[in-house]
Amino acid sequence: MTKKKKTLQGLQVVFIGAGNVATHLSAEFTNAGASIIQNVRKSAASEKKKFAKTSISDVKKLKKDSDLYVICVPDDAIAAVAKSMPDVKGTVVHTSGSVPMSVLRKFKSHGVFYPLQSFTKDKKVTVNAYAICIEASTKQVAEDLMECAGGISKNAYLLTSKQREVVHLAAVFANNFSNHMFAIAKEILDEEKLPFEILKPLILETAFKIIDVDPKDAQTGPAVRGDKKTLARHETMLKSNTAKLYRKLSKDIQA
Amino acid sequence: MTKKKKTLQGLQVVFIGAGNVATHLSAEFTNAGASIIQNVRKSAASEKKKFAKTSISDVKKLKKDSDLYVICVPDDAIAAVAKSMPDVKGTVVHTSGSVPMSVLRKFKSHGVFYPLQSFTKDKKVTVNAYAICIEASTKQVAEDLMECAGGISKNAYLLTSKQREVVHLAAVFANNFSNHMFAIAKEILDEEKLPFEILKPLILETAFKIIDVDPKDAQTGPAVRGDKKTLARHETMLKSNTAKLYRKLSKDIQA
Repeated sequence: MTKKKKTLQGLQVVFIGAGNVATHLSAEFTNAGASIIQNVRKSAASEKKKFAKTSISDVKKLKKDSDLYVICVPDDAIAAVAKSMPDVKGTVVHTSGSVPMSVLRKFKSHGVFYPLQSFTKDKKVTVNAYAICIEASTKQVAEDLMECAGGISKNAYLLTSKQREVVHLAAVFANNFSNHMFAIAKEILDEEKLPFEILKPLILETAFKIIDVDPKDAQTGPAVRGDKKTLARHETMLKSNTAKLYRKLSKDIQA
Repeated sequence: MTKKKKTLQGLQVVFIGAGNVATHLSAEFTNAGASIIQNVRKSAASEKKKFAKTSISDVKKLKKDSDLYVICVPDDAIAAVAKSMPDVKGTVVHTSGSVPMSVLRKFKSHGVFYPLQSFTKDKKVTVNAYAICIEASTKQVAEDLMECAGGISKNAYLLTSKQREVVHLAAVFANNFSNHMFAIAKEILDEEKLPFEILKPLILETAFKIIDVDPKDAQTGPAVRGDKKTLARHETMLKSNTAKLYRKLSKDIQA
């Protein structure tokens, strides 16, 4: 991989995949100065070619002289894609939090480029300093990928497969499960025709607070206060399944 | 209550309580131009008198000529405090999300002033536009309290006791339970000596996203993808109690 200092100018990248991760990373690599020389996706004809110069649908026919190949396909499909790919000289990475790096071992230079971010289609990322977790087959590849990640975010981490898996698991709680709590909160309000707007500043503050305060110390509410009357009344207000969840989470907070 | 337009200039307020809510609201009323003429707290002598002009420890001796009395004591103590208070002409409010307004009915003008915020001591609130939920004994008191709330935040809502209780329950999910998810995430990282810093941008983004996107549509991760392999592996990585929670939340997300 060749590139000028502090930007990814001159870096040639091929993206494999057409989902949220491919779309967002393509934009970020482009913003950092890299050239997306090719994009491989199932329906190349219908592609809008937002970033990539060319688009193909057969991974066997991809350009072999790119610096970096970024596989952004569902976890289960990564191994198959790697198998179908021709031998390439550039570095091949996948972007999964939980798939081991070893599925890419047929490539001389390989690694992982896992953006710790929850990408939603057509929704720009607000917080740009998200962490990028790197794993690499050699020290040189590690240096190259860390420089790549550094072109996109100031928070690049070099992790082992095991560490990345732990980070991924923690991210499920921090992102997916907390988002599920927001979804339940909205449901509760919806049923009484109360606007979700009422909770949005509180949700933002909840996130902002843990920037400075350990989440354990930031905990408030009836569970941590041991307010049994409110806990009991809340349970009666909820449907059976959600009431069970309420009881379990309150118990966990008190433990 | 008398005050100039758009600010609380001239409004005289007495605070009863010395916890997070009293401290934060005292600061906000002061910033909006109101005068905190007295503060009632258990240990008046040791008080730092940050905002209040005088501080006493016996609620029976509070000034009777204030415009507004804000009771910021634990939910269980509100009724007893109200009982001990002398008859006052001003409006008496409590700040609880779940205690009915009727505990204050001995006062001619009474209501609820519930700030939908999670206050932590010594931690300034980052998001200032948090919702304030108002309930009032008469139409006039409602107007007065809505103006008070408007001096502090642009998001003031006039709600019934029932609606406020629903909002409070939703806030437990949106704030306490999502914060608990952050605490578990930190625990998972701590065990592998990985820095919590790695997750902070993701947590911020998770909150920012629901400003524009319905949380149901914002959901990502192995549960919503139906990625059984990852779900199963994650469970094996967790302690029994947390694994159970992981399974329940994943199941709920899939439902």
